[in-house]
Amino acid sequence: PNARAVAEARERQGRMTTPPGALGVLEDVAVQLAGLAGEAQPPIPEPAAVAIFAGDHGVHAQGVTAWPQEVTAQMVRNFLDGGAVVNAFAGQVGAEVTVVDVGVLADLPTVPGLLPRKVARGTADFTRGPAMSRVQAGYAIEAGIEVARDLVAAGNRCLVTGDMGIANTTPSAALIAAFTGRDPAEVTGRGTGVDDAMHEHKIEVVRAGLRANRIDPADPVGVLAAVGGLEHAALTGFILGAAALRVPVLLDGVIAGAAALAAAALSPDVLHACVAGHRSSEPGHSVVLEHLRLRPLVDLELRLGEGSGALLALPLLQGAVRALREVATFDSAGVTERS
Amino acid sequence: PNARAVAEARERQGRMTTPPGALGVLEDVAVQLAGLAGEAQPPIPEPAAVAIFAGDHGVHAQGVTAWPQEVTAQMVRNFLDGGAVVNAFAGQVGAEVTVVDVGVLADLPTVPGLLPRKVARGTADFTRGPAMSRVQAGYAIEAGIEVARDLVAAGNRCLVTGDMGIANTTPSAALIAAFTGRDPAEVTGRGTGVDDAMHEHKIEVVRAGLRANRIDPADPVGVLAAVGGLEHAALTGFILGAAALRVPVLLDGVIAGAAALAAAALSPDVLHACVAGHRSSEPGHSVVLEHLRLRPLVDLELRLGEGSGALLALPLLQGAVRALREVATFDSAGVTERS
Repeated sequence: PNARAVAEARERQGRMTTPPGALGVLEDVAVQLAGLAGEAQPPIPEPAAVAIFAGDHGVHAQGVTAWPQEVTAQMVRNFLDGGAVVNAFAGQVGAEVTVVDVGVLADLPTVPGLLPRKVARGTADFTRGPAMSRVQAGYAIEAGIEVARDLVAAGNRCLVTGDMGIANTTPSAALIAAFTGRDPAEVTGRGTGVDDAMHEHKIEVVRAGLRANRIDPADPVGVLAAVGGLEHAALTGFILGAAALRVPVLLDGVIAGAAALAAAALSPDVLHACVAGHRSSEPGHSVVLEHLRLRPLVDLELRLGEGSGALLALPLLQGAVRALREVATFDSAGVTERS
Repeated sequence: PNARAVAEARERQGRMTTPPGALGVLEDVAVQLAGLAGEAQPPIPEPAAVAIFAGDHGVHAQGVTAWPQEVTAQMVRNFLDGGAVVNAFAGQVGAEVTVVDVGVLADLPTVPGLLPRKVARGTADFTRGPAMSRVQAGYAIEAGIEVARDLVAAGNRCLVTGDMGIANTTPSAALIAAFTGRDPAEVTGRGTGVDDAMHEHKIEVVRAGLRANRIDPADPVGVLAAVGGLEHAALTGFILGAAALRVPVLLDGVIAGAAALAAAALSPDVLHACVAGHRSSEPGHSVVLEHLRLRPLVDLELRLGEGSGALLALPLLQGAVRALREVATFDSAGVTERS
């Protein structure tokens, strides 16, 4: 981050017609964006675009969710038809929705709003070896970088992570365990709502994935290939791309969090561009937030994915920057400072 | 609340293309608004208007804040000039700003956006007797009811509480202690940021106010008159007015919280219309939220007032209702339900 812009932003906050510190967490996030942009009064992060990276997962065969695999493709169609929560929230906060097929099992129609970037028809079952090859992981990362670049080239000033992939909380848990060193039991949640027996089984599947592969957290692409999903790899690229372009990226829940661990392992500087949109009720997500020292803006026990939680945080992020840009100073407004 | 609308809203949530419970707290708030409107798919709470009730406080003379009293009027001018945080946030979320002078000490200009409803030039020092007469409290309550009615008549479908009044966390603490029975030390915070010595003194001032007046929580108007502020009384009316019109009212921080206690003491049904916008870092506010069983939508250590925290919650509330209205069902979207 640009130290001069950070210092000037803090100095301006001290002169704004508010008691010191009265905007709490929002003061820090506004200063973060000042440092990212290299301007004491950074641009308001709008317009914003959410990219929903979709993929399927070979580990679905292990019975880690009660949802059939074809729901991934069905939900992609629902996004394109405007019928999902992500569409409702994007409409509310004025964000554009783009769906990116990086690894859906089924063939998908060629329609506006869907970017065909299929690297594979889903991943392999990671309990029997790597979920994908390093080359595939690389292609998916590249796809994510390019989506970030294209959305910024189209004029967006804030990127929002979204995801869809039945069973994708299982590779998320494996990635989080791999990058943070936590036990799978601590980071594996109930996803869309599995029962006790399936939850226990899911933890064992995550353990099996970590045993069946050589896991070296110093090799983030290798970890993604071993136990990740194609949408995790693409989201890793999306975060890298946003950070390289100095555009803030609002992270959604546990899937984006797992990808952020990979991105930060590749380049710790990406965190200067990352804002945690919300805290998911998935336990692994709180582990990510703690590990990356990110403070979420929204904390409402959401666990939907799609980018829904991050979209709700967008007006808060925009408001934080708008306050830094627009609020009058004591001097300019003729307001007396405290004694 | 309308039980049929509540049941139908819950039933629709069960058919929406989301895992059960995946929208967390937002599902409850959407159902609350369904019950309030008497419709399973209630109107999206927009447009919204924030009313900033401004008043001065005789207890300022006791040295409970480092800010001079004239800052109340100066900040009113700042609101009218569009230079305050409440203006920046209102602009971000698309809300209208109205300022209501219910008790500012100074004369204020006659300008658009400022409603002249001055009941008195500030309150009296409540450590020496009642802050105002019952008649004055009644006038301020009526002013608040009328502002609610006028804003709804103008087409607003969501009301947002705002406040301005140097020293007004002190009467808030006294009201909260009076209505909840908590000790003043538990509910008196640092407001705009007083030091340890002034904080101790502020607690003693609150105790003195409760000793100097006859406090009967069963007589809410009497409590408001004894230790409240004119903006607290007006906000009490504003909440009563919104609830009577079945329009949701987003509550800001500790000042609105103190007023909500008074409103709920007058008519517990008002709570069906109340949504807690945020949790202030003032300790008394958490006591209010617990007492009224309200779950705040935003929790970011804000302590500014003006309506700022509630405005940030507006898109979350609107998103919650929009999801209930617009998200496709499994059946309509052709998405397979889980086994």
